Amino acid sequence: MLQPSINAFFRDDVLAMQPYVPGEQPQGGKAIKLNTNESPYPPPPSVIQAIQQAASRLERYPDPLATSFRLRASEVLNVDADQILCGNGSDDILTILTRAFVSSGTKVRFPYPSYILYRTLAQLQGAASEEINFEADWSLGPSFDTDLRLVYLPNPNSPTGTMVSRDQILELADRLPCPLVVDEAYVDFAPFSCVDLPATNPKIMVTRTLSKSYALAGLRFGYLVAHPDVVQMLRKVKDSYNTDALSIAGATAAIDDQKWLVENVRKCNATRDRMTIGLRDLGFAVIDSHANFVWCKHPQRDSRELYELLKRNGLLVRYMNYEGWSDGLRISVGTDSAIDAVLAVLR
Amino acid sequence: MLQPSINAFFRDDVLAMQPYVPGEQPQGGKAIKLNTNESPYPPPPSVIQAIQQAASRLERYPDPLATSFRLRASEVLNVDADQILCGNGSDDILTILTRAFVSSGTKVRFPYPSYILYRTLAQLQGAASEEINFEADWSLGPSFDTDLRLVYLPNPNSPTGTMVSRDQILELADRLPCPLVVDEAYVDFAPFSCVDLPATNPKIMVTRTLSKSYALAGLRFGYLVAHPDVVQMLRKVKDSYNTDALSIAGATAAIDDQKWLVENVRKCNATRDRMTIGLRDLGFAVIDSHANFVWCKHPQRDSRELYELLKRNGLLVRYMNYEGWSDGLRISVGTDSAIDAVLAVLR
Repeated sequence: MLQPSINAFFRDDVLAMQPYVPGEQPQGGKAIKLNTNESPYPPPPSVIQAIQQAASRLERYPDPLATSFRLRASEVLNVDADQILCGNGSDDILTILTRAFVSSGTKVRFPYPSYILYRTLAQLQGAASEEINFEADWSLGPSFDTDLRLVYLPNPNSPTGTMVSRDQILELADRLPCPLVVDEAYVDFAPFSCVDLPATNPKIMVTRTLSKSYALAGLRFGYLVAHPDVVQMLRKVKDSYNTDALSIAGATAAIDDQKWLVENVRKCNATRDRMTIGLRDLGFAVIDSHANFVWCKHPQRDSRELYELLKRNGLLVRYMNYEGWSDGLRISVGTDSAIDAVLAVLR
Repeated sequence: MLQPSINAFFRDDVLAMQPYVPGEQPQGGKAIKLNTNESPYPPPPSVIQAIQQAASRLERYPDPLATSFRLRASEVLNVDADQILCGNGSDDILTILTRAFVSSGTKVRFPYPSYILYRTLAQLQGAASEEINFEADWSLGPSFDTDLRLVYLPNPNSPTGTMVSRDQILELADRLPCPLVVDEAYVDFAPFSCVDLPATNPKIMVTRTLSKSYALAGLRFGYLVAHPDVVQMLRKVKDSYNTDALSIAGATAAIDDQKWLVENVRKCNATRDRMTIGLRDLGFAVIDSHANFVWCKHPQRDSRELYELLKRNGLLVRYMNYEGWSDGLRISVGTDSAIDAVLAVLR
């Protein structure tokens, strides 16, 4: 325990926060990880080569604006390079946005259930969280509130894999008294994106990560697409050198290889759809997912027991219990053989 | 310019901040950089090898606690592994500390002149900065203030290269109503450190970086040494995966190679001392430095003109003008031939 005198130095908001619990890691490296939405396949070989080249000049500071990535991403995404802000994972981008817009005593809003980091970010700013229950059609409820400073809308959402339409997002942005952050961590697995919207609507900001679809969770690279004026202001909030020389090089090579991305997404989505059918055949309720995971629950069987059963068989999935909504299993898309193994154990 | 409606979304503290200006980078790669305290020598070869090995499993999330680094650093520094918190450069560590301790409307304190990031971090938290002029003997002035939430004490300081003694630091910590962060970014070039103090005095916290003495500015890896209870609380404030798989691997290899470090520091300090003598021979006032740079000023010649003269000769040093104190040149330790070139141009 902290001595009272030391505890007193911390901000009350920090004292009140729940400690961070790192994600479950398999013992001995033998378990198959289907619990953190990592890619079952390695990144493109060009990424490894780019990293090895960049490793030869590490004594120099990296480019603070990750220009090589922004230039290439600009072409791929068809946005201006000045619309892109790079970060140490999209968590860093979400942190920067929250620190820029949210002051103590105000409010942020996001769906429930959703990514728990949003709550942590609000708490760190001394702001309240308003969690909006997803409605039956999985769209986001109505809203107006002058204390509101930021709305996070993960699209696709986790753990549900569901999406809100572009029309709904445009309408929501119009009604809000604050910026709307569309968190597109999983968007490469989805049928549409909002990445074109910020250019004409400065209230809409889109975050992305290379952790999922580009198989680069270990690299920590994410980015924001926003109006250039917004990006310029946000540069004041980020750490000066928030992306390192290796991740800039790797991320640039990754986004350059769109052929690899298309093929990786095709494989993952095929497996996802097969898993959805397989689970439904076993009697599970499965929400149609637009991400690299599925959310499922069996009407008769206990979700936690199923999680334990899979774990005993070397298959690590995520058991989640959202009070007031539901518990269930979130199973990441793995290799076909990993998903076959899951289905076999559940059968 | 931002539309008024968009500007209004940003926090006032953010609007009031000066935009970040990235450090000057030489055109065409021909200039010799002596302006950002980077190492003139590359990192140990073992670092490159470790990075190349780690590059083969980037699809997995990194260890959120950088355990391999903490275990090795624990032995090298003779502190407990639970006393160490790793970050994306020591800037990340300073950000975490400031967010943990400093609330809006309070105050932080640091020396003047010093590292300008401290001011930015205070502004981002909505706190005031109290900048204490270094006294003639370069120790830190007296102080007591109940609004004070955090004191940063870079040791050695930049741009001066001067140090405050361990006894003074212990005395200062006793007098303060808040934590004392001893920023040891340059300490490997110095005769003593405070890294042992946090174990018995939880008010003292020591930050370190691998950017300077380990020649890894491009890698972004820094760490904190603090009391284990402090570290545990700070884990709540950091981004979950704030260090990436490549930087953890590289940093672990770097701190493992103490033989390389000792030799690198020996070379750099020999060049620094030679540069000090050379500048004094040319009539410069040079402060004795315990870091990998020297601060100098010529009593008759204009510092900015000298900076321009060196730049025209392909030698990039840092011209700094601290209002109310002095202007002058901060010259990073380079190779012996680079420093010879500087002295030749100034002569």
